[in-house]
Amino acid sequence: METMCGLWLEDGHLDLREDIPVPAPAPGEALVRVLQAGVCNTDIELTSGYYPYTGVLGHEFVGLVVEGSPALRDQRVVGEINAACRTCSACVHDRPTHCERRTVLGIVGRDGAFAEYLTLPIENLHVVEDSIENEQAVFAEPLAAALEIQEQIEVSVDDRVLVVGDGKLGQLIARTLALVGCELLVVGRQERKLAHLHAAGIDTRLLRSPEEAKAANLASFDIVVECTGNPAGFELARQAIRPRGTLVMKSTYAGALTLDASSIVVDEITLLGSRCGPFAPALQMLARGEVEVADLVDARYPLAEAAEALEHAQRPGVLKILIEVG
Amino acid sequence: METMCGLWLEDGHLDLREDIPVPAPAPGEALVRVLQAGVCNTDIELTSGYYPYTGVLGHEFVGLVVEGSPALRDQRVVGEINAACRTCSACVHDRPTHCERRTVLGIVGRDGAFAEYLTLPIENLHVVEDSIENEQAVFAEPLAAALEIQEQIEVSVDDRVLVVGDGKLGQLIARTLALVGCELLVVGRQERKLAHLHAAGIDTRLLRSPEEAKAANLASFDIVVECTGNPAGFELARQAIRPRGTLVMKSTYAGALTLDASSIVVDEITLLGSRCGPFAPALQMLARGEVEVADLVDARYPLAEAAEALEHAQRPGVLKILIEVG
Repeated sequence: METMCGLWLEDGHLDLREDIPVPAPAPGEALVRVLQAGVCNTDIELTSGYYPYTGVLGHEFVGLVVEGSPALRDQRVVGEINAACRTCSACVHDRPTHCERRTVLGIVGRDGAFAEYLTLPIENLHVVEDSIENEQAVFAEPLAAALEIQEQIEVSVDDRVLVVGDGKLGQLIARTLALVGCELLVVGRQERKLAHLHAAGIDTRLLRSPEEAKAANLASFDIVVECTGNPAGFELARQAIRPRGTLVMKSTYAGALTLDASSIVVDEITLLGSRCGPFAPALQMLARGEVEVADLVDARYPLAEAAEALEHAQRPGVLKILIEVG
Repeated sequence: METMCGLWLEDGHLDLREDIPVPAPAPGEALVRVLQAGVCNTDIELTSGYYPYTGVLGHEFVGLVVEGSPALRDQRVVGEINAACRTCSACVHDRPTHCERRTVLGIVGRDGAFAEYLTLPIENLHVVEDSIENEQAVFAEPLAAALEIQEQIEVSVDDRVLVVGDGKLGQLIARTLALVGCELLVVGRQERKLAHLHAAGIDTRLLRSPEEAKAANLASFDIVVECTGNPAGFELARQAIRPRGTLVMKSTYAGALTLDASSIVVDEITLLGSRCGPFAPALQMLARGEVEVADLVDARYPLAEAAEALEHAQRPGVLKILIEVG
């Protein structure tokens, strides 16, 4: 059995292993040689036990198809991370990302992208145009997640929109929303991260603490996108939304969230959970250069130093860390 | 100064007072002589300090216009309970029920309907057709609240819909949803209340405890309407909703609600707060006899026994209690 190198998570411990079996593609699946992978906050949450997962971490990648699909062989691809059964109720109703028996690359029951090889259903793969660099393509997955918001709700040029959070996902969400032409403000805790948005022509406001956030008295936004994943961020988002407005919840939360449910009822707020999104428009945006991503890359590590890459990703002020595999 | 009789709430104490000044209608307002009023759970919550209110309780009523509008004089009316300023941002954007400076009949800064007289802006009043009895008309306000759901989301004949809660509001919500022809189930804790729905041809299921609710394993509903206002009801609703489904929150909650926010994100659930609704279609349904309400009345009390009426409304298994005023 052929083996490969990969970053293995087990019982909260990360281990760079050389003896991981190269996965065998099931019927309908392709074997992909990973070229580059990106570190996401979900990877970090998984290492801190957000929920139990054992296997290779990583779900943002660009790679080359090496087996399983003659049509895609040697083509550069990115991949949707939810592998669906195609027979359960969610699948039959065209909600494959919510498949009841899904595996999720590097997250649920399927070894991920911080390794030399991975497998995914062929239908999950999207060919990457030559004009898109590897370092751009690796953003396809989080960019698609950002675009999911606009699949779920209509954002119009007249809307006042607030993004709470200046991290990796907040950056992409803000950049996709800026394309709509709505009135947009991003609030965050780190000057360095907000500077990236400012450079992209997006209004920002530094709020370093819950006290500063409260004093800012942000209010009357039509749409607020919460992408901090912490209760203080949610509280700020809740305060900022107008009656009958929509609060998009884009980040998972480490623990339970306590909320004033009566105010949600009285103000007729919509809370909307939002997760994975459409790859085709994300790739199109990258191909057209509509969304800048190069400035978000803070460092690159070889696969042999993947554990260090995850450490680096957790330092304050750091945005995207890439792992160069092939 | 003329005085009147009314049920006065102050510091959590109810007091039947004879010395309440008859309210003077402001410009644009009408003085209404109350004929009948209905007891709502919100009245009970206000007496237990849900939030501070001092004044005459009650917001469900039918009455006669006696002053302030020559056009409506001597006409029988029901009234929308939110009195709006017409100048704030919410009002300008056609959301008068969310007016930032609103008073709310018997709830916020405006004496209510458990009295001989009340005032409301003329634009809040709706004339009641002769074919509608007083005992039906008094249901216009809660029936409008039930119909608010269908103002906010489209409920189609193909949807599987669950109503959690067999109380006064749940009864009306179920009856309005039944008219859509969707697949409908109502769960509740009280056999007697569910029997009313069963008689109306609506499927019901008795779940007497959180344990029974959990064991029932209700799942995969497209739309769930939560109208119990207690955390156990919310938990059942959350369990029953499918990914990408909509959970309508129709009741206020006494305290804070603790929720697994990550699951809302992962399952891309929509939580939708829902409050006051449109009177015109509610009156139309009553006029056409499309929604039965007579069976919901459990007892009638004269205004002099209004405090007893509120006590009766809190007994287990009791639905609507009416107060006969004029």
